[in-house]
Amino acid sequence: MQVYLAGPDVFLPDAVAIGRQKTDICARHGLTGLYPLDNAVDRSAADASLAIFKANEAMMDAADAIIANLTPFRGAGADPGTVYELGYAAGRRKLCLGYSNDPAVYADRVRRLTDVISRNGHLVDADGLTVEDFGLSDNLMMIHALESYGCALVTPRQRLADIWHDLTAFEACVRLAAERLGATRP
Amino acid sequence: MQVYLAGPDVFLPDAVAIGRQKTDICARHGLTGLYPLDNAVDRSAADASLAIFKANEAMMDAADAIIANLTPFRGAGADPGTVYELGYAAGRRKLCLGYSNDPAVYADRVRRLTDVISRNGHLVDADGLTVEDFGLSDNLMMIHALESYGCALVTPRQRLADIWHDLTAFEACVRLAAERLGATRP
Repeated sequence: MQVYLAGPDVFLPDAVAIGRQKTDICARHGLTGLYPLDNAVDRSAADASLAIFKANEAMMDAADAIIANLTPFRGAGADPGTVYELGYAAGRRKLCLGYSNDPAVYADRVRRLTDVISRNGHLVDADGLTVEDFGLSDNLMMIHALESYGCALVTPRQRLADIWHDLTAFEACVRLAAERLGATRP
Repeated sequence: MQVYLAGPDVFLPDAVAIGRQKTDICARHGLTGLYPLDNAVDRSAADASLAIFKANEAMMDAADAIIANLTPFRGAGADPGTVYELGYAAGRRKLCLGYSNDPAVYADRVRRLTDVISRNGHLVDADGLTVEDFGLSDNLMMIHALESYGCALVTPRQRLADIWHDLTAFEACVRLAAERLGATRP
């Protein structure tokens, strides 16, 4: 059984090493991890971005499940590229799992970045845009997609010191995926 | 023919009025616009967020196409809720269209928010995370999904003064959708 490993991990300085750790964890649970950087794409070619898109989509189509790293990336919410892939996987009716290494609720994360006030009974940011306030870790579409097509978002009890390298929540997702997919440990 | 109108428009102070304008534009082009706020959901109920998710998903399943407002929201990239919906629609093989009222390339938008430097031949932000630098307006997954499942991202030539209320690029998407879906003007 194959699992697509979505996440902004590919943007880390040690992206390749993290991918290796993730696929090793998958293997220990009887699953094959598909990591985007393992695609053989010439990243300097003129059409590199299209080639990466096609390779990632083919990996998702081949996978039985997705594990999305929804740890907040460059802002209050998850990495949009990863979120696109979670949506695509849900649309393709794959088993969907996700984790975030920051358990704060979304509204509190927005407060870290900008002023948030209460207006007419709901929260708004400094630009007057509503701040989603359902006590969830991120936008409701992702959170409920995970519950509908797989398992609830996995988070640690507290925000981790190294949100990009701790793989405890990731391994919990792998364990859930293996159970749901009926994988056999090697 | 029905078009799902995805976007952070629902977070604007005048969200309902914007939705009305968008559905009116759709109607003028022979299309029925499905706007998330038109769902009859009790937003104060305990399970409001799940009800909104289900109602939005039902709207997407019923739609023939999606028009996603990918104007940057609360950061350098598009609203993750909207991006999830674009991914879902692509996964369901709906016709996918999108626009952004900010034509800047992604790397330049990140530069507005944080320091970006060149390291080992690629751009990184202040946290050492790679900044995608393919000259695209946003993450490559969304940009190429639009090309693969519909039409290229529509943007104005210059960043608009009022990025949240100008509907010129939106109407261009409606025109493209009507053409592709073979809609008949009323």
